[in-house]
Amino acid sequence: MALTQIQPGANREDMNLDAEIALAHRLADAARAEILPLFRTSVVSEAKGDATPVTIADRNAEEAMRRILKAEVPQDGVTGEELGIETGISGRQWVLDPVDGTTAFLAGRPIFGTLIALVVDGFPVLGMIDQPVLGERWLGVAGKGTTFNGQPVKARACARLDQATIATTGPHYFSVEQGEAFMALAGQTDHKRMVMGGDCYNYGCLASGQLDIVCEAGLKLHDYAALVPVVEGAGGLMCDWRGEPLHVGSDGTVLALGDPARLEDVLEVLAGYDGGHAHAGPHHDQHD
Amino acid sequence: MALTQIQPGANREDMNLDAEIALAHRLADAARAEILPLFRTSVVSEAKGDATPVTIADRNAEEAMRRILKAEVPQDGVTGEELGIETGISGRQWVLDPVDGTTAFLAGRPIFGTLIALVVDGFPVLGMIDQPVLGERWLGVAGKGTTFNGQPVKARACARLDQATIATTGPHYFSVEQGEAFMALAGQTDHKRMVMGGDCYNYGCLASGQLDIVCEAGLKLHDYAALVPVVEGAGGLMCDWRGEPLHVGSDGTVLALGDPARLEDVLEVLAGYDGGHAHAGPHHDQHD
Repeated sequence: MALTQIQPGANREDMNLDAEIALAHRLADAARAEILPLFRTSVVSEAKGDATPVTIADRNAEEAMRRILKAEVPQDGVTGEELGIETGISGRQWVLDPVDGTTAFLAGRPIFGTLIALVVDGFPVLGMIDQPVLGERWLGVAGKGTTFNGQPVKARACARLDQATIATTGPHYFSVEQGEAFMALAGQTDHKRMVMGGDCYNYGCLASGQLDIVCEAGLKLHDYAALVPVVEGAGGLMCDWRGEPLHVGSDGTVLALGDPARLEDVLEVLAGYDGGHAHAGPHHDQHD
Repeated sequence: MALTQIQPGANREDMNLDAEIALAHRLADAARAEILPLFRTSVVSEAKGDATPVTIADRNAEEAMRRILKAEVPQDGVTGEELGIETGISGRQWVLDPVDGTTAFLAGRPIFGTLIALVVDGFPVLGMIDQPVLGERWLGVAGKGTTFNGQPVKARACARLDQATIATTGPHYFSVEQGEAFMALAGQTDHKRMVMGGDCYNYGCLASGQLDIVCEAGLKLHDYAALVPVVEGAGGLMCDWRGEPLHVGSDGTVLALGDPARLEDVLEVLAGYDGGHAHAGPHHDQHD
């Protein structure tokens, strides 16, 4: 099994990321200003055809964040859910998902989030989950502890898999094989406490010691990059369904554990299934 | 098909429920005071053994509401999730679920709710969904429009089933047959926007025009009684999976529609399955 604590590439402990932390806060503030006025509205821009409030919020927030990045760190790359990839020359890449949980946004639930990550040499070193409506912000930085609205948070211990609370956004995001693997895992947990829905908010709750496992598949870089520093800075662990660290080339299967000591138990269950492969079937929906 | 608009029993339009509305607000305020300090804590009362924060919140909030009811309306019956049934002599019954969505509460998600209903002659005539953390309160009263924090809200129109956004708390709450029926229905909707999780909060979002269909099963009276006046006062419709109005003897299958015009489409899909029956299988979890 891979030692997921050892990540190649960036020597994360040596970085001073104070300027990047301040920049991430400004990015999230700018995204909030675009997103908040559109929550629970039915405003549809005529100019954008069949655009929904969330597609407008998504695009406006990403444009606002890109403007700041272009002005302040033009040498860095930018990858966003809405507007694609701008290659940089620094080996550093900002990864943006302005509204993670678009279906939650559209349903009027204030548990979607803006995701901001800084990826260095292929691995996330800074991550932010921002909930605009509730004014909630998780920040994780390599070599520093995770904070929630500025206060340190810790993931919780979980002595046995059958005491674990598991979360996933929905079974419709799994392929058939992945769904079987997830159900096998969920069946080993305290499944009466299982929660569905949640998107990025689940990972924040895990970092705050409220959940033990989040298990998903089909995630893209902009979905998972920001989550890794948040979860790991709180003492948790993130990896793919084979136990490998998450990086720009991961296959989209994602595990978050509040207690890294449960990793072998979880991988043992998943290893019995073919679901860890990244082949996307035609019948499951896309996270967004 | 039953005309769900005509409900036997109470002549709901003739009631003056101003005093009951004021009482319901006081009940919800009392529940908030008990619940809020326990959200996102790991406090476990030694005196209560393996009690979790939510079981303490549940019990304390129900006791607080029952104290008020006993003092103010001792002639009315009370049914609560935690503390059972107290029969009254007035033909009126207060139905309480102090924390609907206990798994959401335990996961740290602020979208659980306190449910308060007044049932007269077997049918709900007043319902309240209160979210303590967010300070959000939906109130529905027979013969009056539904309000959200005092402002009128309306469910939205939905011209075609394939444009509908559907929600359910989780597939693990269905029996096998019910799950098949739900998936058939979800497949006819705009399933890319389907959301899981949510409990009572989904019905509030539907009343506010953010969702089109909520479809669940295995609900008890304390889970659904408060939802009916909230949804119907916003112009929506609630019924069981056969289209019958919800009352104290309903079978636990629950449909909420933002646009009553979609009822026949929905019932037609569900009628193809055996899932409408109330037989509880051994393999699905309980709502709470």
